[in-house]
Amino acid sequence: MTIRLSTEDTDFEARFSAFLATKRETSQEVDAAVREIIARVREAGDAAVAEYTRRFDRFDPAQTGLRVERAEIEAAYEAVEADTLAALRLARERIEAHHRRQMPESRRYRDALGVELGWRWTPLAAVGLYVPGGLASYPSSVLMNAVPARVAGVERLAMAVPAPQGRLNPLVLVAADLAGVTEILRIGGAQAIAALAYGTQTIAPVDKIVGPGNAYVAAAKRQVFGQVGIDMIAGPSEVLVVADGDNDPDWIAADLLAQAEHDTAAQSILMTDDAAFADAVTAAVERQLKTLSRGEIAAASWRDFGAVILLRDLDEAPPLIDRIAPEHLELATQEAESLLERTRNAGAVFLGRHTPEVIGDYVGGSNHVLPTARSARFSSGLSVLDFLKRMSVLRLGPDELRVLGPAAVALAQAEGLEAHGRSVSIRLNL
Amino acid sequence: MTIRLSTEDTDFEARFSAFLATKRETSQEVDAAVREIIARVREAGDAAVAEYTRRFDRFDPAQTGLRVERAEIEAAYEAVEADTLAALRLARERIEAHHRRQMPESRRYRDALGVELGWRWTPLAAVGLYVPGGLASYPSSVLMNAVPARVAGVERLAMAVPAPQGRLNPLVLVAADLAGVTEILRIGGAQAIAALAYGTQTIAPVDKIVGPGNAYVAAAKRQVFGQVGIDMIAGPSEVLVVADGDNDPDWIAADLLAQAEHDTAAQSILMTDDAAFADAVTAAVERQLKTLSRGEIAAASWRDFGAVILLRDLDEAPPLIDRIAPEHLELATQEAESLLERTRNAGAVFLGRHTPEVIGDYVGGSNHVLPTARSARFSSGLSVLDFLKRMSVLRLGPDELRVLGPAAVALAQAEGLEAHGRSVSIRLNL
Repeated sequence: MTIRLSTEDTDFEARFSAFLATKRETSQEVDAAVREIIARVREAGDAAVAEYTRRFDRFDPAQTGLRVERAEIEAAYEAVEADTLAALRLARERIEAHHRRQMPESRRYRDALGVELGWRWTPLAAVGLYVPGGLASYPSSVLMNAVPARVAGVERLAMAVPAPQGRLNPLVLVAADLAGVTEILRIGGAQAIAALAYGTQTIAPVDKIVGPGNAYVAAAKRQVFGQVGIDMIAGPSEVLVVADGDNDPDWIAADLLAQAEHDTAAQSILMTDDAAFADAVTAAVERQLKTLSRGEIAAASWRDFGAVILLRDLDEAPPLIDRIAPEHLELATQEAESLLERTRNAGAVFLGRHTPEVIGDYVGGSNHVLPTARSARFSSGLSVLDFLKRMSVLRLGPDELRVLGPAAVALAQAEGLEAHGRSVSIRLNL
Repeated sequence: MTIRLSTEDTDFEARFSAFLATKRETSQEVDAAVREIIARVREAGDAAVAEYTRRFDRFDPAQTGLRVERAEIEAAYEAVEADTLAALRLARERIEAHHRRQMPESRRYRDALGVELGWRWTPLAAVGLYVPGGLASYPSSVLMNAVPARVAGVERLAMAVPAPQGRLNPLVLVAADLAGVTEILRIGGAQAIAALAYGTQTIAPVDKIVGPGNAYVAAAKRQVFGQVGIDMIAGPSEVLVVADGDNDPDWIAADLLAQAEHDTAAQSILMTDDAAFADAVTAAVERQLKTLSRGEIAAASWRDFGAVILLRDLDEAPPLIDRIAPEHLELATQEAESLLERTRNAGAVFLGRHTPEVIGDYVGGSNHVLPTARSARFSSGLSVLDFLKRMSVLRLGPDELRVLGPAAVALAQAEGLEAHGRSVSIRLNL
């Protein structure tokens, strides 16, 4: 049953804490299987990848080719409807324009002592992008992962996508091409992650792997972490809608259901100061559920993980928002800006009554790869920074070394690191 | 035996690849033990922490108190020598000044369509800082981890440090106090990581845990990742010194040994275009080794993992540097800036003949927590960014929604997400 809490309840704190502690992920025990797949791919390379592909995706990459050819991409363009293609192009343009503004600047400066300090941002050389097959094969996610990488300056962007029985979603191919993916590999699962991380005879290794996947892919990413970088392991999606009573209940219900239809483990939360409005929204949810093609999924999500939190006053919202730390936060209130000012934990914030979260999923320009499961307390959505790294730069001349050197020698001595001290003192004739 | 390679060797590529693949870490199998410790702390809280502390650190925190009191910190100040204290203060000031310049800016803008986009950086609320006990208990590392957190605006900064038989290093206490640590917990090991991640009756949970530690601490950090954020898991330290023949061989030998004395698994690499200079440096290394207090450690590191790479020309250096992706890179050459321009993978770069890496360990102002084990290919040193996260912000009015909405609906339809489409179309009366 959808949970209903009120800050007026005497046991609110206990119930809210219990609500926060609810686990939505069922972690499958796949570590051992994945460990074997990775070991086999490291050992046998392409042959192992081909074998797993025959077994899991039921086709022979030796016949179709491991790599998607240009002609297949051209054919995919033909297969996509004109308005969908136009929408993909618009999305790509907006994502690119926004992410260009995120580019950080390299910097060098000289401090008061004359010491030169600074940093230099450089792009990762090669990135692997995993795209799930089947239902969760979303072209929008291809854009969201690939465009920032290319904006950052990543030269090689290798996409791996499982092709059940050899077939690929044309929309995914088109999105990859629009986004500047430089090679598309018709492979999936832990074997694809292993191939990208360690390389094979025909696949060059990458420096980082991003993108969502099933339990096997997630476990493989965790296991290759260190050999390559990885992005966050994404959990089920969630939205927190903070709404006053002046909203149309049907609009807010639609927003809650847009999240719920993703997955039975998705979570939709309504927070409001108006009990009658909360009733109207829940009634609208029930009504809309009846006509949804993914109604069963959405109904299960709303029933098992949905929640309505009643506040005495919207001023109670910010500390509760921060504890929930939602992936998506809609502030559909009159004082959205003032609430935003007092909030610090959320992946992405959608302000006002005309910014449904779905705009951010597709064409807002901001990224839809966001921290889930309360990790917005300590992490951020995907950005160009995930495809850049920073070298720090230091330069002293003899004069600066004379000024700073003795303090370094003193600290080296205090830490018992004699050779550290000598590397400075030898230059000072100490 | 210290490896010697030359780009003139016909088998250079094979030997260089083998060199890159050398593993320096001996990964201990401690996962199961750590899993049990974490489970016990989650279950029994303070009692479990006290029990493990009695067992591993051989003192009873119930008697000394779990928290270090102000009087103990004041006493520590008395115990520290004046020039060490002055050096710590100088280091803190310089680290703070440099890291202030790293603070990123929040931003809001309106694009050509009138859509408002932007992002807002906010600090993490609470961070745990782990400081190892024993030999690796370095006050400089306390500054390097704690100062950026406070500069970022982290309010609660809880330090955990094991206290063998109840004793703490006064230098570490003083460094923590200077750096703005807000509470010091006399606990260590996996039990400290568990307490920080999940909280106990008397320890509030944090949002992220940073700082180095032994195999148990590293395994515990991996296991609590997700519940909290963690920094990178640091491997053994390494330096690559690129030097032309105009350097003093004794200076360069001292730099190689400063790295080697850290740990038998540390790695020091010399890259030069001058074979006679290489011989002079290796001779100087042998000479200096004889008089070092940590000579045995340094000798083992240099023997097992040290390397000399001879180049025909320094122009060969950049692609090799990028493949090594060293934690520390010294460019002790005439054309250091030009080499830097062509390099992209390194944690920190030290330019010219008067910037020994050791300055960066202590008083340069830049951070000494840097990516090891070739991870500079995809990650960066510690900075204020590790203690901030970014909320993305989007705002549309009715007009902007009318312009962008139909494309979002088209993409939702293409992805089979009907409720996504409805959350937009319901606002457009479509």
